[in-house]
Amino acid sequence: MSEKKGLEGIVATESRISSIIGSQLTYCGYEIDDLAENALFEEVVFLLWNDRLPNQTELDDFQAKLFDHMTLNPRIYTHFEEYAADKIHPMAGLRTALSYLSHFDENAEDMSDEANQEKAIRIQAKVASLVAAFSRIRSGKEVVKPKKGLNYAANLLYMMKGEEPNSTEVEAMNKALVLHADHELNASTFTARVCVATLSDMYSGVTAAAGALKGPLHGGANERVMKMLGEIESPESVEDYLKEKFENKEKIMGMGHRVYKDGDPRAKYLKEMSRQLTEEIGEPELYEKSIKIAEVVEREKGLLPNVDFFSASVYHAMGIDHDLFTPIFAVSRVSGWIAHILEQYEDNRLIRPRAEYVGQTGKKYEAIEKR
Amino acid sequence: MSEKKGLEGIVATESRISSIIGSQLTYCGYEIDDLAENALFEEVVFLLWNDRLPNQTELDDFQAKLFDHMTLNPRIYTHFEEYAADKIHPMAGLRTALSYLSHFDENAEDMSDEANQEKAIRIQAKVASLVAAFSRIRSGKEVVKPKKGLNYAANLLYMMKGEEPNSTEVEAMNKALVLHADHELNASTFTARVCVATLSDMYSGVTAAAGALKGPLHGGANERVMKMLGEIESPESVEDYLKEKFENKEKIMGMGHRVYKDGDPRAKYLKEMSRQLTEEIGEPELYEKSIKIAEVVEREKGLLPNVDFFSASVYHAMGIDHDLFTPIFAVSRVSGWIAHILEQYEDNRLIRPRAEYVGQTGKKYEAIEKR
Repeated sequence: MSEKKGLEGIVATESRISSIIGSQLTYCGYEIDDLAENALFEEVVFLLWNDRLPNQTELDDFQAKLFDHMTLNPRIYTHFEEYAADKIHPMAGLRTALSYLSHFDENAEDMSDEANQEKAIRIQAKVASLVAAFSRIRSGKEVVKPKKGLNYAANLLYMMKGEEPNSTEVEAMNKALVLHADHELNASTFTARVCVATLSDMYSGVTAAAGALKGPLHGGANERVMKMLGEIESPESVEDYLKEKFENKEKIMGMGHRVYKDGDPRAKYLKEMSRQLTEEIGEPELYEKSIKIAEVVEREKGLLPNVDFFSASVYHAMGIDHDLFTPIFAVSRVSGWIAHILEQYEDNRLIRPRAEYVGQTGKKYEAIEKR
Repeated sequence: MSEKKGLEGIVATESRISSIIGSQLTYCGYEIDDLAENALFEEVVFLLWNDRLPNQTELDDFQAKLFDHMTLNPRIYTHFEEYAADKIHPMAGLRTALSYLSHFDENAEDMSDEANQEKAIRIQAKVASLVAAFSRIRSGKEVVKPKKGLNYAANLLYMMKGEEPNSTEVEAMNKALVLHADHELNASTFTARVCVATLSDMYSGVTAAAGALKGPLHGGANERVMKMLGEIESPESVEDYLKEKFENKEKIMGMGHRVYKDGDPRAKYLKEMSRQLTEEIGEPELYEKSIKIAEVVEREKGLLPNVDFFSASVYHAMGIDHDLFTPIFAVSRVSGWIAHILEQYEDNRLIRPRAEYVGQTGKKYEAIEKR
């Protein structure tokens, strides 16, 4: 046995959910481009869980159920009011709230397929409401209930902002949700699978995954892209700004990817949405700065923008607080976590690797006064 | 690349914390027998975190800090009162509460070594109070604050029961805590490491781990041992009871272990404590039934009792509700989770294996009316 640090290159499981082959990402055999151009987020969620796209009746039913479950138990609002929600990391708030949801689900411990399908819909529905309610309560605003007739992306924005989003915003949010839904055995998804491989419940799995996504090596890159965009005065100052970063050997956020060497296939859709949205809000220089950064980093480092790079200006242009970018990521990725949790249950085996012991040996307990 | 289901036999990391070699478990080079016979749980926690046993000054200081941090923010009590704590799985309650603790720790996001050492003590101290408060509040009893001068094991029992435990109980609880503190890369510990390898915070790690321990393939075995003991009328009826179980190919809980083939080195200490405690409470037949079960299962199946087997009657004899056995396990194992989280931070790499794609290929999005 030799150590596989980070388990790099180790195949931990088979999966039918998503594949990354070369620079192509697919969900259940559909190329991400095809889905980003055509699909509603709800269709993608249905696809990830059922391995096929829904027909119209199924989609109507699925959307109706999601809408019904978007309403939160009032105790959840109380919960957000009981601590200083404006002082904590929003992903810590989401982690606790996802776990807390289970206390109000009388089928939380029912491990039948039927109950798990039901829990899947509940969690996917409520995660949008949790992020929206958390965001409004911490700013001292009234909670906004979901609105019938809006799709998932539109309702997420509506509940956050308190007003109906325009069609560009809905399109951008829908695309962002589609693009972030799943990504094979990324660290949060793997956390969820390791957790539930003890046959623990779905709430345990998504809570564990939210904790993993909270880490800066996973979620959070787009928030830091936004910070960088804020530090750069104009498109003209990008060269100087990056020159200094390169000299200090600092990492440029949102550029390059461990898996995609020839560019992240998800980036282009958010690039176009960023162009449209920053123009709409009268901040086109945000887009221009982004384009310039991408150009310089490619020229100097050979790195291309990843999915996080343009999502920063997209979310900002929709009026979303920068520290809520990772929770929005979670709203989408919950669908992938759940797909993997359901897949893990189908053919479960405890995930329990070994550690190579490199510590002390042959120690003997000595009375404390002799230490 | 070929699939390593459950990552069996794969070395995921090096570790200096505990080793399982043959049938010998060591913590930082000390045999578990040596520690079970001699050490206070607090010494073991210090050992796991610092790779050496404390001297008297260090131990005094460590115990004082643990005691100080045992007090919970009153909002935590309110939280336990705000949902039907008597209706949920206690491990779900503990999972939420561990996550919630972070909302009251202003250094929750500080990733310096110093802040992490501080968080370690806070979490270890508070986990005992969480389990005790949850248990009392769900039964409509007043919360009991920790008592100065009692050691960790004694305070845990005191806060749960509302009266000072006798010396046999303290000895038994201390041994149980020592024996459960760490166990190499078990599933919950591995969950914690995968989670924090994104550089997520310690609360995320222990919350994720608690979710994993909740699963019946990990925690919970001793609760089911207790159920079995309840189903068996007398030592004389053990043979018939087990005969039926064997015929139905049912698993006998608390017997055998995936890693220890020649017997679990931790079992003998709890066996002796079980003998003493069941006699003290006037239920010696619990111990007698246990002995008979172990005898028959060894004779018929060649399996030996593991650590869970005798802990069942030990905890029962101390008056602990059966569904709190796993939370008590968590109170001890938190020390190991934290040791592994700190070790992960020291030389971190994102833990991100691959999945082998076995799903559909070449699908094309079709208009919904054609599906």
